[in-house]
Amino acid sequence: MRIGAIEAGGTKFVCGIGNEHGEIEDRISFPTEPPGITLVKVVSYFKDKQVDAIGIGSFGPIDIRPGSPTFGYVTTTPKPGWGNYNFLGTLMREFPVPYGWDTDVNAAAYGEATWGAAKGLKSCLYYTVGTGIGIGVYSEGKLVHGLVHPEGGHVLTRRHADDDFAGICPYHGDCLEGMAAGPAIEARWKVKGDELPAEHRAWEIEAFYIAQSITGAILLNSPEKVILGGGVMQQSQLFPLIRNAVKQNLNGYINANEILQQMDDYIVPPGLGGHAGLYGALALGLSALKRQVTLM
Amino acid sequence: MRIGAIEAGGTKFVCGIGNEHGEIEDRISFPTEPPGITLVKVVSYFKDKQVDAIGIGSFGPIDIRPGSPTFGYVTTTPKPGWGNYNFLGTLMREFPVPYGWDTDVNAAAYGEATWGAAKGLKSCLYYTVGTGIGIGVYSEGKLVHGLVHPEGGHVLTRRHADDDFAGICPYHGDCLEGMAAGPAIEARWKVKGDELPAEHRAWEIEAFYIAQSITGAILLNSPEKVILGGGVMQQSQLFPLIRNAVKQNLNGYINANEILQQMDDYIVPPGLGGHAGLYGALALGLSALKRQVTLM
Repeated sequence: MRIGAIEAGGTKFVCGIGNEHGEIEDRISFPTEPPGITLVKVVSYFKDKQVDAIGIGSFGPIDIRPGSPTFGYVTTTPKPGWGNYNFLGTLMREFPVPYGWDTDVNAAAYGEATWGAAKGLKSCLYYTVGTGIGIGVYSEGKLVHGLVHPEGGHVLTRRHADDDFAGICPYHGDCLEGMAAGPAIEARWKVKGDELPAEHRAWEIEAFYIAQSITGAILLNSPEKVILGGGVMQQSQLFPLIRNAVKQNLNGYINANEILQQMDDYIVPPGLGGHAGLYGALALGLSALKRQVTLM
Repeated sequence: MRIGAIEAGGTKFVCGIGNEHGEIEDRISFPTEPPGITLVKVVSYFKDKQVDAIGIGSFGPIDIRPGSPTFGYVTTTPKPGWGNYNFLGTLMREFPVPYGWDTDVNAAAYGEATWGAAKGLKSCLYYTVGTGIGIGVYSEGKLVHGLVHPEGGHVLTRRHADDDFAGICPYHGDCLEGMAAGPAIEARWKVKGDELPAEHRAWEIEAFYIAQSITGAILLNSPEKVILGGGVMQQSQLFPLIRNAVKQNLNGYINANEILQQMDDYIVPPGLGGHAGLYGALALGLSALKRQVTLM
């Protein structure tokens, strides 16, 4: 099998070719420009590759409701050219194959559940903490969609006692993304996060907000694994801070060894490193192909 | 078909007999006492009823992980006699039929998804706001279990500006249950909730906390319907207050008509009234029977 995989990020596109064993055989990357430029590059890449299916994990918001008139569209983004853009339809006209189509973070969660840190489990959360914050939700062996799709990066926060930063989310001010995404760190400390030393108290505050969100997500969804990726999570000193804060927040209430004794193996970096999104797109494409075969 | 249904609440048990059309044909109720008393009543009720399957929605925490050595147990409850009690096993010895087994709030969510306010939808949340607060989670056509099971009543809260109540959760102090369950209302205002007039500012504060949790749950799971049941939600003045607060919290970020224009039909009371739990147990029993037939 030859499966096309597209990790359509807000700043960067990655396209690749993979197979059913979870092996990426070829890969290309380019910056995200208006679709008139970017989609031409995508189509050109896949043109002679003879793919059997394509999986796409896309920046959002996107329409993933089957039957919706705008299914397959990027919807309300301010990104030039992408608002109300028929991303999936454009590709379908060029390549009439089965498609998997989901958000970038759901794709990453699916990649991790298929070949990464949550392999063999029926549930996980995938956080990306970078320019924004997104949470992919995989529960009972399925990616969660619902009314629109998960947008967990915007949950409201309880404030850290030492933090008077107002938050920078244009919708919610001090929601999680407004307080803890990369740009919020930079706005709070007047310096980019990766220029702050590992022992700076910025990281304790950062961990506080991320841990608060993880605590709420554990209580609501009871995931079997919590995976933290994205640029900010390259600061590996965050992991022990977050694990301790989650444990303190839960205060023994969730009686599971994974939380009480094996936290180092419960809140973890992506097993697929920075490639969870592309592998996830591959897994989405594979699923679409299998679904089609089953229907025939 | 004759399906046994057990709504095993922390203060009250309801047992019933129903059929595949969602009709409850007979019902009995008694207070929850230690299992040596209560289970004798349950067994006695079903003794000559010739049920084809039994569904149970139980107070918790309970073990719902198939394959776990304590599957079917009520686990760490302080309730006399129920801690580490093999609830399911006790019934299985008496009635060797297929069993559905889940939490009381997941059962209620399932009942509402099968015959109630979320009928035909693939996702909903079911809140019970009463002596405690529980949240049943139904996503992508499945009840969510994960590591343990959802315990969303204990999510941390951001404090209301006019509220200096400390909260009464023994684990978390001012988590949702600690701030907004019935006993918290009584502790804060020194009078039972149902003695407070509908225009008392207690209800605005109550709505603030419930809405905050709903906002977070919408962002994380994107449910197609949010159903609010339990004794406290009998205060119907809470519904418009909660809907408005959720809308304000989201601030237009979730671009769905259900939220932007049809909130009255999105955050709703149970379609099955106070019987969501028993109907849910019936639906769990039916599912167990169908699963068994499929396996044979």
